Amino acid sequence: MTDSAILLIHCPDQAGLVAQVTEFVHRNRGNIINLDQHVDRSIGHFFMRIEWDLEGFLIPREKINDYFDTLLGKTYDMKWQLHFSQRKPKIAVFVSKASHCLFDLLQRHGTGEFDCEITAIVSNHRQLEGLASRFDIPFHYFPITAENKAEQEAETSRILREAETDLIVLARYMQVLSNDFCQSWAHRIINIHHSFLPAFKGARPYERAFERGVKLIGATSHYVTADLDEGPIIAQSVEPVTHHHTIEDLKRIGKDVEKRVLSQAVYLHLRHLILPFGNRTIIFN
Amino acid sequence: MTDSAILLIHCPDQAGLVAQVTEFVHRNRGNIINLDQHVDRSIGHFFMRIEWDLEGFLIPREKINDYFDTLLGKTYDMKWQLHFSQRKPKIAVFVSKASHCLFDLLQRHGTGEFDCEITAIVSNHRQLEGLASRFDIPFHYFPITAENKAEQEAETSRILREAETDLIVLARYMQVLSNDFCQSWAHRIINIHHSFLPAFKGARPYERAFERGVKLIGATSHYVTADLDEGPIIAQSVEPVTHHHTIEDLKRIGKDVEKRVLSQAVYLHLRHLILPFGNRTIIFN
Amino acid sequence: MTDSAILLIHCPDQAGLVAQVTEFVHRNRGNIINLDQHVDRSIGHFFMRIEWDLEGFLIPREKINDYFDTLLGKTYDMKWQLHFSQRKPKIAVFVSKASHCLFDLLQRHGTGEFDCEITAIVSNHRQLEGLASRFDIPFHYFPITAENKAEQEAETSRILREAETDLIVLARYMQVLSNDFCQSWAHRIINIHHSFLPAFKGARPYERAFERGVKLIGATSHYVTADLDEGPIIAQSVEPVTHHHTIEDLKRIGKDVEKRVLSQAVYLHLRHLILPFGNRTIIFN
Amino acid sequence: MTDSAILLIHCPDQAGLVAQVTEFVHRNRGNIINLDQHVDRSIGHFFMRIEWDLEGFLIPREKINDYFDTLLGKTYDMKWQLHFSQRKPKIAVFVSKASHCLFDLLQRHGTGEFDCEITAIVSNHRQLEGLASRFDIPFHYFPITAENKAEQEAETSRILREAETDLIVLARYMQVLSNDFCQSWAHRIINIHHSFLPAFKGARPYERAFERGVKLIGATSHYVTADLDEGPIIAQSVEPVTHHHTIEDLKRIGKDVEKRVLSQAVYLHLRHLILPFGNRTIIFN
Repeated sequence: MTDSAILLIHCPDQAGLVAQVTEFVHRNRGNIINLDQHVDRSIGHFFMRIEWDLEGFLIPREKINDYFDTLLGKTYDMKWQLHFSQRKPKIAVFVSKASHCLFDLLQRHGTGEFDCEITAIVSNHRQLEGLASRFDIPFHYFPITAENKAEQEAETSRILREAETDLIVLARYMQVLSNDFCQSWAHRIINIHHSFLPAFKGARPYERAFERGVKLIGATSHYVTADLDEGPIIAQSVEPVTHHHTIEDLKRIGKDVEKRVLSQAVYLHLRHLILPFGNRTIIFN
Repeated sequence: MTDSAILLIHCPDQAGLVAQVTEFVHRNRGNIINLDQHVDRSIGHFFMRIEWDLEGFLIPREKINDYFDTLLGKTYDMKWQLHFSQRKPKIAVFVSKASHCLFDLLQRHGTGEFDCEITAIVSNHRQLEGLASRFDIPFHYFPITAENKAEQEAETSRILREAETDLIVLARYMQVLSNDFCQSWAHRIINIHHSFLPAFKGARPYERAFERGVKLIGATSHYVTADLDEGPIIAQSVEPVTHHHTIEDLKRIGKDVEKRVLSQAVYLHLRHLILPFGNRTIIFN
Repeated sequence: MTDSAILLIHCPDQAGLVAQVTEFVHRNRGNIINLDQHVDRSIGHFFMRIEWDLEGFLIPREKINDYFDTLLGKTYDMKWQLHFSQRKPKIAVFVSKASHCLFDLLQRHGTGEFDCEITAIVSNHRQLEGLASRFDIPFHYFPITAENKAEQEAETSRILREAETDLIVLARYMQVLSNDFCQSWAHRIINIHHSFLPAFKGARPYERAFERGVKLIGATSHYVTADLDEGPIIAQSVEPVTHHHTIEDLKRIGKDVEKRVLSQAVYLHLRHLILPFGNRTIIFN
Repeated sequence: MTDSAILLIHCPDQAGLVAQVTEFVHRNRGNIINLDQHVDRSIGHFFMRIEWDLEGFLIPREKINDYFDTLLGKTYDMKWQLHFSQRKPKIAVFVSKASHCLFDLLQRHGTGEFDCEITAIVSNHRQLEGLASRFDIPFHYFPITAENKAEQEAETSRILREAETDLIVLARYMQVLSNDFCQSWAHRIINIHHSFLPAFKGARPYERAFERGVKLIGATSHYVTADLDEGPIIAQSVEPVTHHHTIEDLKRIGKDVEKRVLSQAVYLHLRHLILPFGNRTIIFN
């Protein structure tokens, strides 16, 4: 696999930005592998993802941030993230009782589609401990009550930080994380909500979808913010349903949508293809 | 085209209903063309659509309702609608300024896909008068203000009833009909709402969808009730959108979804394939 | 879970078939749980699926076939299959090197969505032996060469019959089964082909799809017949692709379509919802 | 509407191309409105679409081609197309008897979604003359026989050239155009084929789809080449079908797919968003 660097950049738009950034790479003997940009002209803001081969690149990787800041970032009031393809992201998966999303993540990890390490499975139930151990992944049992929540979250955070966790995936995890937790892991928690947001936020979306008599059910993956089910959406998908379907059928059909929408979001995040901006996301090619 | 009768029936479920109804048709020399039924076992309710060829049918059409009531309807506490294929439904289309939905209805009417008469185009603006006259359809201009609304609705109703109108299609009609109007035309008004209900009810759904950063936009056709955008859903569809799309793009893409979802609902209604029940719809094959 | 019987019936159409069959169940104190039927009027053929609760049913299960044949089957020239919900089907999964489809089947089996036993994983490679053993499923290694093929197939068939296997699922199994094998397991082998049939039959469909520049890629699940990729189609689905996607991307995206389309077919088969007829399938509700 | 220039460029890939082209625009006081590029790394080829506001642009429009060629085109072995937003493209629509695609084009033209002139409707039947005249579009009747085909095509070409026609849209036009005609209008004829290519090329695709028992039907829009249904694909879409659907139902459902897929292709072409390359298309954002 190529040893590459990925920059996700955004700043106020002006003439010449693409040229400036590509020049920065070229001038320093980097070979561009991927380039995608977007200008939101309604607000005059520029977004770019550039990936280049580090072989022969003049600037040592530990200095790239600094050079970029000095030569471009400051000048153009840029905000950016710098990633390296060789650093394999570490992800923790939070689950409750439903296994289908976790299973799908394990499948993609197993085939190498997800180039990452799954360092922990965290759960408020013991149900999925067996599945975790089938795949030799450390399982951490953290039952949550009103009284112990803050403490359990703190301990969970501690374990995850020790393991240098980059991303938390809530795979039908049914506890609501505290604002503090969400903020300390901002843009590093992906959740799957089992409805087509913003319809049916919160609890029991399938029951409510059934009552409303919708003809499509959906699922939404998003970054978690302090407001439940309100964070920037990454992916959504739907499946048709009819009067023949009971609530149980909706849940069964919905599981497939949840799996693919959550996995799609995780895939995009691991490939550094998502740039959250305001309450929306830019998904680069 | 076959001269057929269509019964849409529903009642509390019990053993033998399908046999009873099919027997009713057979015994009277009717040849069944189409049969579809559904039991909602969670509430023990039975739904059926049966269509049969009237050629050689023993009961004269003006007596079918009465015979059915006497022989089956009363016994099984049935509610039903009886339709005849040879009666071409008459529809009125309400529009404001946007023409795309009206155009699609005219196209399907023109090809014969909609076997109906379009007896009137009603509008609160003059914009689409030219289009109505291209297709030789009477255009009725009814501008609405707070003061004249009741009167305009009454006059509109009068004209529609005189023309024996069966169905009103709100094709991006932007006025909110009064409760009285909705109730006097219950289950005979189909509306297209330019969002995936129940998300983004009411005004400016595309702007709100854009702000929320959804990755799919949708449209919903439904029967109109007293509550805005709350009536039983008939059809829904979605299209993917990305960060590249402006609000204008969302509207452009959305128009296509609106057209097909509204036309799908009208097609199903004209073929007597929809049975509204509670706030949901059974869509028969 | 309900102890039910399921009949899948088809015969030349005539008046009264639905009534006859439902009467057969009612008269013998069976309570109908599910009923779906279809008439193909272009050929005058009738299809039905009826499921009823066996509790209190007068005819003992080992005699149902005989009674049905005597009382209805012969009279109406019916062909039928009789299944019992309490008999958990046994399935064998054939794989080569790709694991994603197998994994998805294991996930649905694990959650109980597939109510069946997975009695064997058969493979012409050793790659997936580890995965089989993680899930405690017997793994049978059968490498195939031109010389040993007949013998390997015979031995495989023997093992499967001994285990009373009901269904063989080819989960991206890359060997072509012989005509003899296909015929001896007629309508009991489901394959996933990684294209939208009949486009791109045979080898390397993704490469060929890429060359053709299609904008959608698909997958098809079908019953296996003697003719490669020609058997009756059960399910199909597609995903959009663009010029940005390489052949590797097509394969990655395609895997998701393969998973869901194969699993959908297996689900329908396990629930006895499929009736193959000619080279097509009736999929009941 | 902005007065803009659009360049569609492709050439062998090398470092600095994006910078070079954007610089060309900037240096000459052009303000970039839209920029999208793609590199096919498997063949080392670069593709770009750049659109800029001509207000204040230093190079007069009649000289842009020449300057671009001199300063960039030759150096980088580029091939390009230059378009101006203010030149409203002129399209001719070819039809036979089916009106649905033509109608959809007329609807989008009527709303301004298609910013173009429809200068002629050409047909080998008289059926749609009425529709053409409702919309005040010149109708040209050209019945085709083996004997008169070359002559009719020549006359048609002459009329179209006189009207400075930019694009021919075959809207379910059932005649096969000669190689000569296709070549003289290379990349300027868009056809809709009523199947999901490459499945069911040629005649009677719905009948053949029905026989094959597919569970999805589709349509494909593409540029016409000398080989029937083989040209570069622009757009494709599908709709689900079931055993309930007759061949007539497939045609009815298929019409909707044809409409949207053809109209999508025409929209993209009119906006100069398509770059055909080899037998494929790049569709820019």
